[in-house]
Amino acid sequence: MKKKLVYLFEEGNASMRNLLGGKGAGLSEMTSLGLPVPGGFIVTTEACLKYYEDKGKMSEELISQIDEILEKFENKVNKRLGDPRSPLLLAIRSGARVSMPGMMDTVLNLGINDEIAKSLVELTGKERFVYDSYRRFIQMYSDVVSGLDRSNFEKMIYEVKDEKGVELDSDLDAEDFKKIITKFKNYYKKELGEEFPQDPKHQLYSSIESVFKSWNNPRAVYYRQLNHIPHEWGTAVNVQMMVFGNMGEDCATGVAFSRNPATGENKLFGEFLVDAQGEDVVAGTRTPLDISELKKIMPEMYEEFATNSRNLEKYYKDMQDMEFTIENNKLYMLQTRSGKRTANAALKIACDMYEEGIITKEEALMQLDPKQLDNLLHPTFDPKALKEEKPISKGLPASPGAAGGRVVFNAADAVEWKKRGEKIILVRLETSPEDIEGMHMSQGILTVRGGMTSHAAVVARGMGICCVAGCGDINMHEKEKYFTLNGNTVKEGDFISLDGSTGNIYLGEIPTVAATISGDFEKIMNWADEFRTLGVQANADSPRDAAQALKFGAEGIGLCRTEHMFFEADRIKAVREMIVAKTIEQRTKALDKILPVQRQDFEELFNVMGELPVTIRLLDPPLHEFLPQKDEEIKDLAKELGLSEIELREVITSLHEFNPMMGHRGCRLTVSYPEIAIMQTRAVIEAAINVKKTTNKDVKPEIMIPLVGELKELQYVKGYVEKEAQEIVKKSGINLNYKIGTMVELPRTCLLADEIAKEAEFFSFGTNDLTQMTYGFSRDDAGKFLDDYYQKKIFLTDPFATIDTAGVGKLVAMGVELGKKTNPELSIGVCGEHGGDPASVEFFHKAGLTYVSCSPYRVPIARLAAAQAKIRDKK
Amino acid sequence: MKKKLVYLFEEGNASMRNLLGGKGAGLSEMTSLGLPVPGGFIVTTEACLKYYEDKGKMSEELISQIDEILEKFENKVNKRLGDPRSPLLLAIRSGARVSMPGMMDTVLNLGINDEIAKSLVELTGKERFVYDSYRRFIQMYSDVVSGLDRSNFEKMIYEVKDEKGVELDSDLDAEDFKKIITKFKNYYKKELGEEFPQDPKHQLYSSIESVFKSWNNPRAVYYRQLNHIPHEWGTAVNVQMMVFGNMGEDCATGVAFSRNPATGENKLFGEFLVDAQGEDVVAGTRTPLDISELKKIMPEMYEEFATNSRNLEKYYKDMQDMEFTIENNKLYMLQTRSGKRTANAALKIACDMYEEGIITKEEALMQLDPKQLDNLLHPTFDPKALKEEKPISKGLPASPGAAGGRVVFNAADAVEWKKRGEKIILVRLETSPEDIEGMHMSQGILTVRGGMTSHAAVVARGMGICCVAGCGDINMHEKEKYFTLNGNTVKEGDFISLDGSTGNIYLGEIPTVAATISGDFEKIMNWADEFRTLGVQANADSPRDAAQALKFGAEGIGLCRTEHMFFEADRIKAVREMIVAKTIEQRTKALDKILPVQRQDFEELFNVMGELPVTIRLLDPPLHEFLPQKDEEIKDLAKELGLSEIELREVITSLHEFNPMMGHRGCRLTVSYPEIAIMQTRAVIEAAINVKKTTNKDVKPEIMIPLVGELKELQYVKGYVEKEAQEIVKKSGINLNYKIGTMVELPRTCLLADEIAKEAEFFSFGTNDLTQMTYGFSRDDAGKFLDDYYQKKIFLTDPFATIDTAGVGKLVAMGVELGKKTNPELSIGVCGEHGGDPASVEFFHKAGLTYVSCSPYRVPIARLAAAQAKIRDKK
Repeated sequence: MKKKLVYLFEEGNASMRNLLGGKGAGLSEMTSLGLPVPGGFIVTTEACLKYYEDKGKMSEELISQIDEILEKFENKVNKRLGDPRSPLLLAIRSGARVSMPGMMDTVLNLGINDEIAKSLVELTGKERFVYDSYRRFIQMYSDVVSGLDRSNFEKMIYEVKDEKGVELDSDLDAEDFKKIITKFKNYYKKELGEEFPQDPKHQLYSSIESVFKSWNNPRAVYYRQLNHIPHEWGTAVNVQMMVFGNMGEDCATGVAFSRNPATGENKLFGEFLVDAQGEDVVAGTRTPLDISELKKIMPEMYEEFATNSRNLEKYYKDMQDMEFTIENNKLYMLQTRSGKRTANAALKIACDMYEEGIITKEEALMQLDPKQLDNLLHPTFDPKALKEEKPISKGLPASPGAAGGRVVFNAADAVEWKKRGEKIILVRLETSPEDIEGMHMSQGILTVRGGMTSHAAVVARGMGICCVAGCGDINMHEKEKYFTLNGNTVKEGDFISLDGSTGNIYLGEIPTVAATISGDFEKIMNWADEFRTLGVQANADSPRDAAQALKFGAEGIGLCRTEHMFFEADRIKAVREMIVAKTIEQRTKALDKILPVQRQDFEELFNVMGELPVTIRLLDPPLHEFLPQKDEEIKDLAKELGLSEIELREVITSLHEFNPMMGHRGCRLTVSYPEIAIMQTRAVIEAAINVKKTTNKDVKPEIMIPLVGELKELQYVKGYVEKEAQEIVKKSGINLNYKIGTMVELPRTCLLADEIAKEAEFFSFGTNDLTQMTYGFSRDDAGKFLDDYYQKKIFLTDPFATIDTAGVGKLVAMGVELGKKTNPELSIGVCGEHGGDPASVEFFHKAGLTYVSCSPYRVPIARLAAAQAKIRDKK
Repeated sequence: MKKKLVYLFEEGNASMRNLLGGKGAGLSEMTSLGLPVPGGFIVTTEACLKYYEDKGKMSEELISQIDEILEKFENKVNKRLGDPRSPLLLAIRSGARVSMPGMMDTVLNLGINDEIAKSLVELTGKERFVYDSYRRFIQMYSDVVSGLDRSNFEKMIYEVKDEKGVELDSDLDAEDFKKIITKFKNYYKKELGEEFPQDPKHQLYSSIESVFKSWNNPRAVYYRQLNHIPHEWGTAVNVQMMVFGNMGEDCATGVAFSRNPATGENKLFGEFLVDAQGEDVVAGTRTPLDISELKKIMPEMYEEFATNSRNLEKYYKDMQDMEFTIENNKLYMLQTRSGKRTANAALKIACDMYEEGIITKEEALMQLDPKQLDNLLHPTFDPKALKEEKPISKGLPASPGAAGGRVVFNAADAVEWKKRGEKIILVRLETSPEDIEGMHMSQGILTVRGGMTSHAAVVARGMGICCVAGCGDINMHEKEKYFTLNGNTVKEGDFISLDGSTGNIYLGEIPTVAATISGDFEKIMNWADEFRTLGVQANADSPRDAAQALKFGAEGIGLCRTEHMFFEADRIKAVREMIVAKTIEQRTKALDKILPVQRQDFEELFNVMGELPVTIRLLDPPLHEFLPQKDEEIKDLAKELGLSEIELREVITSLHEFNPMMGHRGCRLTVSYPEIAIMQTRAVIEAAINVKKTTNKDVKPEIMIPLVGELKELQYVKGYVEKEAQEIVKKSGINLNYKIGTMVELPRTCLLADEIAKEAEFFSFGTNDLTQMTYGFSRDDAGKFLDDYYQKKIFLTDPFATIDTAGVGKLVAMGVELGKKTNPELSIGVCGEHGGDPASVEFFHKAGLTYVSCSPYRVPIARLAAAQAKIRDKK
């Protein structure tokens, strides 16, 4: 049997998302729910993949299936593509498994040609509407299918407006549009050497093909990279009967969310335009009306739409983002999908829908995107500092959060400035999909035009970037790279600050403060803790970080690095003396100077963490990192240390490494200089005993030995640590619970985890280094070539951001399995940056880890992700 | 039941080597064969390990077992330790599983004290013998057990000789020895504050303990590292009744091999001394007689020994190294073991013993140590150059091979000079076990004293280092660091050359020539090829290497690196132009210049290799390796390339990497610059077609893509290679068999081998890089800390020399298994340096590889090792 490549809406349903795309599955589902959906059919994602397999050729099989189903559909609606007596006009839209808004191509009003335009005028009596639709079609088709520059078409419209002396599209009449159409067709012929295609079938095939092609246009590829969407999925193509919001005053078109996507308020939120097509709303060229206005203008329509909205929400158990068109007082639903929302809105919606009985707690938790919480965990403007500031203007609060940065005026500059390490605010007249990379590079986005559902607003919310939109006061000079606003001139490179929650715009930089967890956020976090079984700890090197981690719900410190402490001003000299020491005595003498300050570091940490475990990693980086490299500094240091410059340079040279990442570091330092580990152990254990004595709390230090790759290596280092710890504990007469464990960050450690676990009380996967070694990528260098890997679609995601489950994950799973085999009591955590990445957290849950440890600001994300992992697991 | 820690010789046998040590098992076996072995017992290796477990204490249990078995033994021989009426004297010797000659301690003549000495004089009537034995005992015990400096005792003997005005020990009489004994005892008391121990039981226990301790003396530890002997084995202690070769003219003692260990000739080979103890022969202080002299002096003894020798050879199926003593015309066998031999001797003995019907072909192959073949594969002096040279003197040809280097006069200097990269000849009066590390660092060894079985000779043969021994003409000034020889003065740092096969000594450096395979060597190689199933190819980058590899039996080129070619003078400029290119056009233009020379490289290679496969790896190193780093060179190059110095420096800076080993190299270069791979593919394929056309041979190029870690990466790179190759082949109209495969050198590649094998026609494990990544060791840096790892017994062997089967090997096995799962036809090789290491070859055989590839000089080693692996496998 031949594979079915084309489906009528009636033949699909919501579960067929992979095959029919999100939009197609949604249209099918709405159709079967009996909602007023204009009919049509879907060309599957498989057909798209086949198209690419066939090196960009639509197979005869596909064409024949399209023809067949089109005929079926024509019979049903009793209209025919290309039939002047009863012409069928179509909308051709992309639709991948997951929404990629604006990234791929759309062709509307397809099926018109000169003859059909004429007959449509006869049939509808609306000449202006017909020629407006025709010119729209030529414009879109020429851009999308034939690759002509869209702006040239805009220019021709402006020419006609100028001739006529008007400004708005609505000032143009049918004759004007005819003039425009003639201009368009001439231009088309001039550029391409052929007439604008008059055969509706040809129009259809080539439009479908161009949607296929748009799957791989640069901005779609970039969007997929950004959102970790596999390049192999392909897009479906939705072919839907046109309905017209631009047939007059009893017509309208709009988009609306079932709740407020910015605040979560349970109230329809959206915009519409009377006598317009959908693109007019999104493009931001006409300023649309608030959806509440629809209630006044067309109350019945409004009620019907509100009812549909409520029903769809209940049905999909999620807030919906819908498109509708009203054609001659009849409501059509064109799309529904889960709506993008701000993090605050997401929390409120989840809590509200639970309270309203629409969803369960589990469903509430699953509705949230843990990554989005990030937006709530970043600093906002310091209220005190803000009091001193007066905004110079205000726009729409399109995407919340506070941000400051230097102004740039186009996406390319944003990318370049960002590379230089600058914080950037992108200021644009309006944004378009071409700007997506530049937007991603920015701290915040400010636009002159467009509303809350404009491109800038939607994309910024999705990215969690602060956005102030539609600030019409701005006098924009994009090319000249400056704008004026209420008397202020802001040039490229000037610092401004934006408050995406209020829409306020400030000159200069405003200090920010950390976030806290309360209200709906706290409620959700408590629910997450009810469900999750995976522990969440934090990586923290200082009492301040530790305190922040506690506020965000960390259950311990999974990684306290000690090297940062070595760099501090009051000890770096002693550290350097230790490094240049020529004898054990000299080295020990230097270490003796570090001991008291290091002990105090740990006392402060234990005081903050009380009875929660605190995992302290022994010194990890190669020693040369603590020595200066610049001539001047070397000279000064030599003097300070009482060495000749030559002697010091000899030490520096002898410590130089070709590949420091794989050099003399981690426990290898202890193998060479056990004194360092002994001093650190003494500092940890004495600090723990001191704090236990003074606070009477059962302090729980865990000493972590890094970069172990071999059992005997662990035994050797542990020997020193254990001996020192035991002696101190014994002498103190205090009963101290301490553990000694190891980091697992080398492939060999995973491969021999059964051996190594015999000597370790805990494992902590250092997945940063493990990823480096497994891929053979130096993180410091890979940046230079990883871009090529993304561009060439070899890598979808950054393996340092989300764990590579197939490779690195296989080693982790092996490490867990082997480790537990010989040591069933083994506690196993992860302290690489993956510990705060939701997809990675899910993997770690499945792999059977005890806990993840991540930066304090990601602790809430990890808590939610852990709960989701457990809930998914139960299914 | 208590563990038996002590065995009588009668209770043991040859199979108990692990428990009783090699010497003990040999003595037991000889005892049960009815050979005349002086009786005794063995303290097991387990007792030794227990001693270390108990932190250096002999348990009461051990002492009581020793007492018990000693009593049994005393009853049997009717002599008693410490009984003046019938005193038992004992020899205490170490004995590990494998022989570690001279590395551990020995105490002879144990059981004498003042009283027993007197009664022994009465019993034997040989006063001189008795006091000679007593002074030997005090001397050895004081050194070995009590830790006094041996040379001070020698000094006291010289004092007595000087007083008397004689030179030789044999000129001393009983009274002289009594004087010496008094001096010794006084010295002992002065140094240690106690009398020399008179209690024979105390002497016994403390001697056994000191043998235990000697397992961990520095030279034994170093020897084990060198020979990959686990530190955990421990040593047994052999306690044997003394027999005396020094009781008069009807006594003798000697060592002999059943065949000539230097040439393999089937004739007793050895030395002996009349009226002497064993140590006199080995120490080189008296010049011993050739074993053939024994036939004249004591013909019956000689015959009996010769018969024992033949029988032991047949019994053990190997050439034997024996010690014997004749006491009053009675022959005692003191030891037998497989004898160390030169590589040539090993080949001849194996072939002869097969011809003689003593062993099978398999046994002949198994008798050989593949590593030893190395000695035969190294260059010898160029006969032409040698003709011009006249030796300045001649010593004993103690260990064959030719070597030149700068003279140093002690082991410490040898180590230091070697570190500086110098080739060294170590010149010593005589060597001792303390010199072992320095000997290992040397190209050759020259001694003034000692014979063919002297320490220097035995150790040098074992190490495969050239040695000329006993060159008595040398006037040695060790301390002053020079010697004179026949009118020449040779100072530290002067260059000399040694011929270990002739004993000749030359001034200056003499050119050498490569070895060839013929005679017994060829025979053995042919046998090896009969048995082995693992293929053996060679790593060769040039036609010269390829030709050498063919001579040594390589079945193809498993790795041709192309980067060396890039460095050659006629192309490095174009390579650099390619690197600084700013556009694809510029890069392609530069590559076009490289193409013809690169094509010629491959044509030459294909011409040599004919129809054998030639695996060519695409460019691997990071591009910065091709650019200069020094200011002057940068200036020159900038001028040459027509760039400003700043521009060139910018390129160099942008290419700098923190960890180049994990940087932009391997196939990552192709991902960024496909043009390079395209050019190389073109060069390979065009060369193959050209050679096929002209020679009509079925040339077999295999293109190897390095550093692949991901299927899509391989697909991407292979896409370009395949396309280019197909186009050229198609255009040529010639049917070319080429393959495209990948190196497996990253952990991830092994973990995902099932995926990657779908796109690869062959795998080649790059175990150098795989070892680096698995351990997280940079080979360039690890040298600095690996010494600590050996010293602290964390590592036994260098994982870059012998594959780490537990870790890296696990990944290899996984790679093979997964790879074959999806691609059963997959050919799998290894091209890291492990390919020529026998232990690693055995592993690769077991892992199911198709072939190993190693340097041309190691091809014969790999062939033999592969045969041994197969033979072991069959068992």
